[in-house]
Amino acid sequence: MVLGLGKTPQQIATITQSLASKTDTVLVTRTSEEAYALVHASLPDAVFHEAAKAIVVDRRVSPVLTPGVLIVTAGTSDLPVADEAALTAHLMGCEVERVTDVGVAGVHRVLDQLPALQKARVIVAVAGMEGALPSLVSGLVSVPIIAVPTSIGYGASFGGVAALLGMLSSCSPGVSVVNIDNGFGAGYMAGLINASSQE
Amino acid sequence: MVLGLGKTPQQIATITQSLASKTDTVLVTRTSEEAYALVHASLPDAVFHEAAKAIVVDRRVSPVLTPGVLIVTAGTSDLPVADEAALTAHLMGCEVERVTDVGVAGVHRVLDQLPALQKARVIVAVAGMEGALPSLVSGLVSVPIIAVPTSIGYGASFGGVAALLGMLSSCSPGVSVVNIDNGFGAGYMAGLINASSQE
Amino acid sequence: MVLGLGKTPQQIATITQSLASKTDTVLVTRTSEEAYALVHASLPDAVFHEAAKAIVVDRRVSPVLTPGVLIVTAGTSDLPVADEAALTAHLMGCEVERVTDVGVAGVHRVLDQLPALQKARVIVAVAGMEGALPSLVSGLVSVPIIAVPTSIGYGASFGGVAALLGMLSSCSPGVSVVNIDNGFGAGYMAGLINASSQE
Amino acid sequence: MVLGLGKTPQQIATITQSLASKTDTVLVTRTSEEAYALVHASLPDAVFHEAAKAIVVDRRVSPVLTPGVLIVTAGTSDLPVADEAALTAHLMGCEVERVTDVGVAGVHRVLDQLPALQKARVIVAVAGMEGALPSLVSGLVSVPIIAVPTSIGYGASFGGVAALLGMLSSCSPGVSVVNIDNGFGAGYMAGLINASSQE
Amino acid sequence: MVLGLGKTPQQIATITQSLASKTDTVLVTRTSEEAYALVHASLPDAVFHEAAKAIVVDRRVSPVLTPGVLIVTAGTSDLPVADEAALTAHLMGCEVERVTDVGVAGVHRVLDQLPALQKARVIVAVAGMEGALPSLVSGLVSVPIIAVPTSIGYGASFGGVAALLGMLSSCSPGVSVVNIDNGFGAGYMAGLINASSQE
Amino acid sequence: MVLGLGKTPQQIATITQSLASKTDTVLVTRTSEEAYALVHASLPDAVFHEAAKAIVVDRRVSPVLTPGVLIVTAGTSDLPVADEAALTAHLMGCEVERVTDVGVAGVHRVLDQLPALQKARVIVAVAGMEGALPSLVSGLVSVPIIAVPTSIGYGASFGGVAALLGMLSSCSPGVSVVNIDNGFGAGYMAGLINASSQE
Amino acid sequence: MVLGLGKTPQQIATITQSLASKTDTVLVTRTSEEAYALVHASLPDAVFHEAAKAIVVDRRVSPVLTPGVLIVTAGTSDLPVADEAALTAHLMGCEVERVTDVGVAGVHRVLDQLPALQKARVIVAVAGMEGALPSLVSGLVSVPIIAVPTSIGYGASFGGVAALLGMLSSCSPGVSVVNIDNGFGAGYMAGLINASSQE
Amino acid sequence: MVLGLGKTPQQIATITQSLASKTDTVLVTRTSEEAYALVHASLPDAVFHEAAKAIVVDRRVSPVLTPGVLIVTAGTSDLPVADEAALTAHLMGCEVERVTDVGVAGVHRVLDQLPALQKARVIVAVAGMEGALPSLVSGLVSVPIIAVPTSIGYGASFGGVAALLGMLSSCSPGVSVVNIDNGFGAGYMAGLINASSQE
Repeated sequence: MVLGLGKTPQQIATITQSLASKTDTVLVTRTSEEAYALVHASLPDAVFHEAAKAIVVDRRVSPVLTPGVLIVTAGTSDLPVADEAALTAHLMGCEVERVTDVGVAGVHRVLDQLPALQKARVIVAVAGMEGALPSLVSGLVSVPIIAVPTSIGYGASFGGVAALLGMLSSCSPGVSVVNIDNGFGAGYMAGLINASSQE
Repeated sequence: MVLGLGKTPQQIATITQSLASKTDTVLVTRTSEEAYALVHASLPDAVFHEAAKAIVVDRRVSPVLTPGVLIVTAGTSDLPVADEAALTAHLMGCEVERVTDVGVAGVHRVLDQLPALQKARVIVAVAGMEGALPSLVSGLVSVPIIAVPTSIGYGASFGGVAALLGMLSSCSPGVSVVNIDNGFGAGYMAGLINASSQE
Repeated sequence: MVLGLGKTPQQIATITQSLASKTDTVLVTRTSEEAYALVHASLPDAVFHEAAKAIVVDRRVSPVLTPGVLIVTAGTSDLPVADEAALTAHLMGCEVERVTDVGVAGVHRVLDQLPALQKARVIVAVAGMEGALPSLVSGLVSVPIIAVPTSIGYGASFGGVAALLGMLSSCSPGVSVVNIDNGFGAGYMAGLINASSQE
Repeated sequence: MVLGLGKTPQQIATITQSLASKTDTVLVTRTSEEAYALVHASLPDAVFHEAAKAIVVDRRVSPVLTPGVLIVTAGTSDLPVADEAALTAHLMGCEVERVTDVGVAGVHRVLDQLPALQKARVIVAVAGMEGALPSLVSGLVSVPIIAVPTSIGYGASFGGVAALLGMLSSCSPGVSVVNIDNGFGAGYMAGLINASSQE
Repeated sequence: MVLGLGKTPQQIATITQSLASKTDTVLVTRTSEEAYALVHASLPDAVFHEAAKAIVVDRRVSPVLTPGVLIVTAGTSDLPVADEAALTAHLMGCEVERVTDVGVAGVHRVLDQLPALQKARVIVAVAGMEGALPSLVSGLVSVPIIAVPTSIGYGASFGGVAALLGMLSSCSPGVSVVNIDNGFGAGYMAGLINASSQE
Repeated sequence: MVLGLGKTPQQIATITQSLASKTDTVLVTRTSEEAYALVHASLPDAVFHEAAKAIVVDRRVSPVLTPGVLIVTAGTSDLPVADEAALTAHLMGCEVERVTDVGVAGVHRVLDQLPALQKARVIVAVAGMEGALPSLVSGLVSVPIIAVPTSIGYGASFGGVAALLGMLSSCSPGVSVVNIDNGFGAGYMAGLINASSQE
Repeated sequence: MVLGLGKTPQQIATITQSLASKTDTVLVTRTSEEAYALVHASLPDAVFHEAAKAIVVDRRVSPVLTPGVLIVTAGTSDLPVADEAALTAHLMGCEVERVTDVGVAGVHRVLDQLPALQKARVIVAVAGMEGALPSLVSGLVSVPIIAVPTSIGYGASFGGVAALLGMLSSCSPGVSVVNIDNGFGAGYMAGLINASSQE
Repeated sequence: MVLGLGKTPQQIATITQSLASKTDTVLVTRTSEEAYALVHASLPDAVFHEAAKAIVVDRRVSPVLTPGVLIVTAGTSDLPVADEAALTAHLMGCEVERVTDVGVAGVHRVLDQLPALQKARVIVAVAGMEGALPSLVSGLVSVPIIAVPTSIGYGASFGGVAALLGMLSSCSPGVSVVNIDNGFGAGYMAGLINASSQE
């Protein structure tokens, strides 16, 4: 798994090709279509996920996916980060469920999803602005929640800082936090937890 | 109405006495028992509200209070700020209702209070930590909400900054915000709104 | 009402069309001409407000507007935020008055507007830089004031933070604050207050 | 489980007594000896953990503890936070192991603990200053790591902010973060993960 | 002139005695009664200004003071900073006028002082909270204004930062700013300007 | 005098034309060549100062300029801000001297300019990075110094914040500060001081 | 040596030509290909280092380079900063070794480089994100380490601030820090130390 | 060498005794008289340095000290940090020279010390407020300078942050920086550099 940020397309193509010759899954995050073009030239089975800005090589044959990971999002603009988390957990062998368009200001939509929430073994909660979704969800379930603040917003959102501080200050236990927009880190953490819960 | 912060007990006593000779209600916020002792010596009907750290002189005779102000709090430690708001709105002629111990991590306790929430004409929502209570409430009612962040918390709460930023970033309309711990400002604003809604 | 920020033009067009089939007013804020082109294709009566970067669908027939909302601005560059507030309050059924080009450094121009200020039931005060306009106005009236800090300025204005902190720290009661540049939130809050004051 | 911060000793005593009549374990964090004296008067089996500033009531009879939680600390001054985490996980039914005095500047001491690190199912890594311990550990194991920044330090440590930012920025996946000094949150999260991994 | 901050009483006494043997005026700012006791023992004509926390030795015989410096303050709690500014300008040979209790939320009290404001050659404007007084005054006069933010306030005042940023962001020219609570620096600057305007 | 920031070229052209019909000098700061093109179309004697990004109309006939203003800069990249200050003071009737390329790390070049420094009645000191030039200069002269932090730099310069804080914290009296890159404000303040010192 | 930031290509060309006529080495940092084109026109032996964005003129004939400077980097994206440091130290007469792709999350790769680390007389450690590499290295050697935080990262990395604070808070002695991305400053400091250690 | 901060007196006594049995020098920084009393009971030759708040055990017999370290300070209140640096370098085998009471606002006092400055092989420059001393000194010598920001100051000094940012932003090469008030780190770095320069 490769962080594309700060690397040239040529560097990404070289690293991706090298990894793809050794493992059956490769994920490059925070990359670009320009880098994908170079990767695709030598790895025709590489796929570009546009919203998540991620390149994926997945050569697993009929993988058995473990259920248990649920990714919850509040708004339309949080979807790319949730996509990155979902891709990551999927490549780690998880079957990923999604609940979208639930937020702290629409409590009833959250409650409507209670069955899905209570079925999960680990939940990734993605939210920007005041970042209260993880707290809200943590009051409804007893499983670990990975909170991902997103940078959507303006003014006092400070590029995700408001959501980050809110999530860290959460008065509800069972929540831990990753970096702003870090869908990959959340998906990876969820993948680790889900794996251990199945052993 | 007097902000006690930064004034000596002697200054507070002088100002309070001067005001009490002109109006029938006086409120001194952010003051101390030491200042109260001085005030009380010359104004025996002055009352000290310990949690709110406020001195009140209320010489209204059988005041007719206007219902409509509801003050909602999440935790035990937010109560002093809510007290300050309640005292202020009360002195402005409002009948003040209180809902306590409701928070974003306990959604069902909030929903249990729906009748009280929906009866209000203006709501003051006091919350620390991630400060999500106003957003939550705003999704359940259609009246103006005054959000008060409190300084309770530690670490990434930064003395109320996390709650302040969360409230300002709220994705729910119908919420405006006053300074951290500013129960007085919230109560005053609620009093103004409640008064106008009765005209 | 839709926050355009972080949504693709296609997402905005879909949401707008869906809303327009259910209600007679739709407002999309923080959007773009590109999104408007898509919206306009399917909703020919949608209008684009360029300064406010807002799309409006308004199918109300001879609406009866309630007077009482006044929007006050200091500088030319605060006008787009004021426009967003005015559009919002108008769609909520308010008749909106405007006072422009008054600021703390030109006190006499503010005093010239005293009749307009004193006629309002709720005031939205939009200001950047040191953000002192709401305090100034609050000393002249006894109605609720919604303060909107704007991001205009440079250096120590920190994209509206100086104005935001100034407004929150205001030594004058009767002022509450919304997020930086959040004309929508201010207009919505004013609409709620104005509605309740007419009941 | 009760956050003592911002509550009076009397409030803590009341809440603790109420909880102890309903469950067989109670934990009060961020409390004081003064509060403990009041609690102890009515609950003689309550114990005060001085370093962690925690009151514990534990009436479980021969509990079967699940192994798998490891708590790693860098310096002597991080121990109280680690104690809080250990108490919490213990009360949740975990057998807790401890590794102390390992840090990024003493890599060989970390490597000496490799067997203990690799035996764990979830690791709590407590560190102040530059907060690099979780990254270091995450390179040596494949289990979830809960990182706890501590407020020890001076100057550019900014009361734990340097460690918090470092942990959030970690270039190593498998790390999520709780609030500064939040041993309770980390222990609780570890308890949830450890429980699910044993199901 | 000596900054007492960070110096021991003994160090202050030594420096003060040394200076008093060479010049006819000495000012020690940010000092304490404890330091004054030591100074007074060897310099019986030293005076302690309690509000300003300043020690003054003034051995000038019938000094001719130059009029022109006006110090304006908004609130009672800004007075100690204004006192420090006044002492400084006085020791530099200025006759200092004072206007107190004028603020942005009480415009008419400011306008009542127009004659005093317009007579000054340089104005020191001391204000906390939103710090708008200098902007307000600058719109009424055409002389240089030295703005002093004060640390009075709470929450979003951030110890004077809100006032400081507001003053720096002022939309009104003719204002420059000194450090938070730096009455000395403002008085010194005013003294320099007043001296040059009399040459 | 007009702040161009946040105004459209059309707004600038309209305001400039209006002012030019009433006074004999107009200054528009923080504007653009695009705005100048529009202004120039109707005011052919308007001049564009490219480095300072300022439009100037100066119709004074043989103005008598008052000497006394000195503008000191450290680096090549501070020149545009110094230009803005110089234009402003010039339009206020001052004869402006310039000293360039002197900095705290080249003390001898500063000392070589001692005659120019000591001849001034007011000094504008423009500096980025650590912003120490005003302190250095203030130790060599006894006249008021207006310090202007500039936004040049990277990393810990934080867009001029390092220089701003350094100037505010200056241990040397006789320095006051304007906003980052605010050459206009500094030039205006210097013009006011220089005018008063000649009366 | 010239900081290109904030200078026009023409200014850079003029300064470079002037310096090249006086000394046999010139380094321009933070410059552009556009500036290089101008420089190259008059100085055909000037070389542009694309990753480091630096122009170098090196007319030394068979220089004797002093060994002892080692530059260590964690990630691919830190290489441009390391290049700038290497160029600087090389021009100061040092023979520069490089160790790349070692980080706190891959301790074994660091340990594999122990011989290179222990041979150095001064080490420049370049790292972004949590910035823990200098601490790690300082535990393995007894020579001075110059730490350079880089701006690579996102969210809570805050453009290098997380790495900067981590390095300043390092619990390991023997580390001092330069500005974010300041490869030049680190290389220069290393050059000074290496020179003195050879005298 | 032991950081006393965050350790109990008992913990300090135990660690100190243990170290003193293995090496001939022990330094405990940021400790207290209370801890010293405990240490002294078992180690009667331990010495307490009150200003530096440091405990020293020095059992070297006639150590040969290497000259070359110079510690420069601006103000009286920076002395304790300078003392900590001096103690550290002394225990590392350096002969330490001191220059006091030189600052950027008193350039001539700095120039008077040119011989001492130019004799040094490494300089520690300790300064608070605007922190410009290291830049000033670096322009006068060609040896490495370790800059130590101190927390003395108020308001915009932000506990040493202004000095820290100024030193990091220094436009003069040859300066690297340690944490605020970190005399130990500066002294240690200077000791390492001085040692290597004598080999």
